[in-house]
Amino acid sequence: MDHIKSYIQEHEDRFVNELIQLLKIPSISADSAYAKDVLKTAEAIKSSLKKAGCDTVEICETDGYPIVYGEKIINSNLPTVLVYGHYDVQPPDPIELWNSAPFEPIIEKTELHPEGAIFARGACDDKGQMYMHVKAMEFMTETKQLPCNVKFMIEGEEEVGSKNLSTFVKNNHNKLKNDVILISDTGMIAKDVPSITTGLRGLSYLEVEVTGPNRDLHSGLYGGAVANPINILTKMIASLHDENNHITIPGFYDNVEELSKEERAEMATAPFNLKDYKNALDIDAVYGEAGYTTNERNSIRPTLDVNGIWGGYTGEGAKTVIASKAYAKISMRLVPNQDWEHITQLFKTHFESIAPKAAKVKVTPHHGGQGYVTPIDNIGYKAASMAYQDTFGKTPIPQRSGGSIPIVALFEKELKSKTILMGFGLDSDAIHSPNEHFGIWNYLKGIETIPYFYKYFTELSKT
Amino acid sequence: MDHIKSYIQEHEDRFVNELIQLLKIPSISADSAYAKDVLKTAEAIKSSLKKAGCDTVEICETDGYPIVYGEKIINSNLPTVLVYGHYDVQPPDPIELWNSAPFEPIIEKTELHPEGAIFARGACDDKGQMYMHVKAMEFMTETKQLPCNVKFMIEGEEEVGSKNLSTFVKNNHNKLKNDVILISDTGMIAKDVPSITTGLRGLSYLEVEVTGPNRDLHSGLYGGAVANPINILTKMIASLHDENNHITIPGFYDNVEELSKEERAEMATAPFNLKDYKNALDIDAVYGEAGYTTNERNSIRPTLDVNGIWGGYTGEGAKTVIASKAYAKISMRLVPNQDWEHITQLFKTHFESIAPKAAKVKVTPHHGGQGYVTPIDNIGYKAASMAYQDTFGKTPIPQRSGGSIPIVALFEKELKSKTILMGFGLDSDAIHSPNEHFGIWNYLKGIETIPYFYKYFTELSKT
Repeated sequence: MDHIKSYIQEHEDRFVNELIQLLKIPSISADSAYAKDVLKTAEAIKSSLKKAGCDTVEICETDGYPIVYGEKIINSNLPTVLVYGHYDVQPPDPIELWNSAPFEPIIEKTELHPEGAIFARGACDDKGQMYMHVKAMEFMTETKQLPCNVKFMIEGEEEVGSKNLSTFVKNNHNKLKNDVILISDTGMIAKDVPSITTGLRGLSYLEVEVTGPNRDLHSGLYGGAVANPINILTKMIASLHDENNHITIPGFYDNVEELSKEERAEMATAPFNLKDYKNALDIDAVYGEAGYTTNERNSIRPTLDVNGIWGGYTGEGAKTVIASKAYAKISMRLVPNQDWEHITQLFKTHFESIAPKAAKVKVTPHHGGQGYVTPIDNIGYKAASMAYQDTFGKTPIPQRSGGSIPIVALFEKELKSKTILMGFGLDSDAIHSPNEHFGIWNYLKGIETIPYFYKYFTELSKT
Repeated sequence: MDHIKSYIQEHEDRFVNELIQLLKIPSISADSAYAKDVLKTAEAIKSSLKKAGCDTVEICETDGYPIVYGEKIINSNLPTVLVYGHYDVQPPDPIELWNSAPFEPIIEKTELHPEGAIFARGACDDKGQMYMHVKAMEFMTETKQLPCNVKFMIEGEEEVGSKNLSTFVKNNHNKLKNDVILISDTGMIAKDVPSITTGLRGLSYLEVEVTGPNRDLHSGLYGGAVANPINILTKMIASLHDENNHITIPGFYDNVEELSKEERAEMATAPFNLKDYKNALDIDAVYGEAGYTTNERNSIRPTLDVNGIWGGYTGEGAKTVIASKAYAKISMRLVPNQDWEHITQLFKTHFESIAPKAAKVKVTPHHGGQGYVTPIDNIGYKAASMAYQDTFGKTPIPQRSGGSIPIVALFEKELKSKTILMGFGLDSDAIHSPNEHFGIWNYLKGIETIPYFYKYFTELSKT
C-alpha cells in the first residue's frame, strides 16, 4: 500500500475531526428519547461512505433502526470483503462520573495515549473503530489501490441486541454475498502487543421482577410478617452462584467447551500482569470461578452478572417501607456450544422454581446471541496476521475475548463466511463506562493496517 | 363530656375542611426540596393551636425543623397532659401508584369507610390523628369543660428519626413537665374492635454501599473476573437471614425479650383472620421467622428489611455493565431490651466482616430509637380504657404494635412519665404507602374519645 503513511499524515486532522463530528450525535439505541439522533447518525454514515468512494449507498429500513449499506464492486472475479460495524452507542450513565460531556468530544493526553485520545461515548465502541474502515476505504479509492470488492453493513441496534439485523441478513443473502467479513469492534492486548480476537462469548440478557404484597407497606406494621420482595430478590440472586462461584442453574454447564491443558497453557503465555490489573481497577483482589485464572474467567468461562437492580425507596433520607416490587437486569456471558436460547430457558425455569410461595416472580428474556470461535488456519486470519506484521512489525497473538458480538455466529450460519475481528481498542478505553475514549494513535494505526488486510486477502485468494 | 356528640355533628364539615387544608401542604421532611412547605405547616399548626384555646403558642427553633409548642395551664394543682404528634409526612413515592394526587386531598367512600375517607399523604400519619387532639382541645375550651392542664408538642422530623426533638426534650424538662403523655400515631384493630397500643418496636436504619472496581466496566470484558458489587451486595444481604428467617448477626437476639406462654396465648386472642390478611395484600402465603405467628412476627419479634436497593443500569432497555457501586437502605425493627445503638454497631461490625476482599463496604447509620412497652396498670391506661368504653361501648384490647415511635422511650427517660398510645387508624389506611387515607368516622371518633381521657385521667389523678 504505497504512500499510506504519508496520506494518513497529510489527512490526520481531518480524520480526527470527522470522527469528532460523528461522536457529537447521541445515538443511544437503548433509549427511545434519542430516536432522532440515531437516525441522524445513519444519515451521516451514509454520506461518509459515499464520500469514501462507495458506488451505491443506501439506508435500509428495518422494524427498528435502519442499516446503512454501501458497496464498491470493481470486478466480480475478485474477492469481496464485507465490513460490519455499528453506529449506535451505549447509554452514558452514570453521567455524573464523566469528566467531560459524553457527547461533546474532547482530546486529552493520557499515560497510555501521549499522542492524545478522543473522550466521548462511542469513541471506541464502535464509531471510532467503524470509521477506521471508512477512512481506509477512502485511502484505497483515492489512491486507486483498492484491490477487491467492498461491502459495508453498518447497523444501529448492536447495543440492544441487533434486533433486526438478523432478519436483514436472512433476507439479503445475495446482496451481502462475500468471501470474508471484517469487523473492528474488539480490542488488542496493548499498543505494542497486537492481537486478533478469535473467540467471542455468547449472551443472554434478562429482566426479573419479584412481587410481594400488592402495595408498598409500612415496614413496622408488616415487617417480619410478609415477604419483602427486595430481600427475596437478593436471596434468589445470591443462590445463583455457589461458594466456588460456579453458577447453580441446573444444566448450565452441560455444553460448555472445556479447553485442553495445551490450549490453556498457550493462553497463559499472553502477557498479563495481575498487579497492574488490580491497580487499574483499584481492587485488592480479583474474584471469580474457582480453578480458573483471570484471563480464563473473562474469556473461556460463562458468567452471570447483575447489570442493574432497583426497588423500594432510593431517594434522599429514609423511608421505612416494604416495597411491593423489586427488579433486576441480569446477563449471562456464554461460551461456544452454549445455545443462548436454551440457556435463557434454563434460567427462566430455574429462577421461577426457586421463588418462595410468598412472592410472585416474572422473568422477561431481553435479547441474546451465540458465542463464536474463528479458526486461525483460514486465509482471512492469515491476511490479518500479515497486515499487523507490516504495520506493527510483530505477529499478532490470537486471543479469546469475553465480549459478545451476537451477530457473528449468525453471519457464518447465513452467509457461510468467516469473520475476522481486527480490534484496535484497549481494555483501558472504558467502553460502556464513563470517560470512554479511543487513542488517536490506535485510530490511525487501524486506518493504516486495514488496507494491508485487503491486499493480502486478495493475494491469498488467488492462490 | 356534655353535648360532645352534638358539638361534633354541628362542626363536622369544618373539622374535615380544616384537616384538608393542612393536608394540602407537602411537608416531606426527608426531602429538602420541601423545606419551605414543612415550615409553612408548622405555622399552620401554631395558629390552629391558638384558635383551639392555647394561651401561649410558640414555634421553637431547632437545628432542623421547628417544634410547635402550645399550652393552657388552668390550675397548677391539676394534672397536666402532654400531647405529642408530628406535622411532617413520608415521601409519596411511588407517586405513579396513587389514584389521586397525594397533596390534593379527596374524600371517597370505601368498603371499610362508607362514611367516606380522606385520601392524602399524612391523612392518618400523622396530620389527621394529631389534629384530632387540636379539635378535642377546641371542644373542651369552647364548652368550658377542660378538666386539667394541656401542653402540645408537635414536631416536624418524626419521619426522619426525630433528629432534634431529643435535644429539645432534654433541654426543656420544666416546660414539658407533665403527668401523662398522650399520642395518636398508631392504629386500632378494627372500627368495632378498639385497642390501645401497649408496645412499640425500636428501630435502626442504615445505608450500605458496596464498591467493586473503581469505574463501571464492560460485563463482557470483565465479567467473571472481578467482583460485581451488585452480586456481592445480594450475597451479603441474603446471608443476613438463615433458612428459618432468623437474623444471623452475632449477638442480635441476646437481649430480645421472650414472651411467656401466657402472654403469647393472650396475644393470640386478638381477632385476626389469616385469609383476609392474605387477600388484602394479594399474597399466596405469609413469610417470616419460623416458630412465630404473623401477629407475633410483626410485633414482638425483631426484623431486618431492605427498604431500598439500587445499582447499575436501571433505565429502559439493556446495558451490559458491571457497576462500580451498589447501595441499599436497610432497617431493623427492634423489640424491648434491644438497644438500637448497640444493634446498629453489631450490624456494622458484622456487615463489614462478611465483605469479600474483592470489594469495599461502607455502612452509614442513619437514625434509630428504642422500643417501648406501656404497663396497663397505670391510671393513664385506665383512663384511656374508660374513655373507649364510653365512646365505643367496649373495653379496648391492649396490643403490641410493630411500628416505632423512637421518641417514646426517650420521653419516659427524660420526663419520667408514661405514654398512652390512643390510635384511631386502621392497618388498611395505607400509611407510608400510595393512597394513604383516614376514615372520617375514625377522625370524628377520635375527637369524641379524647376528651373523655382528660376527664377520667383528671378524676383518677385525684384519688
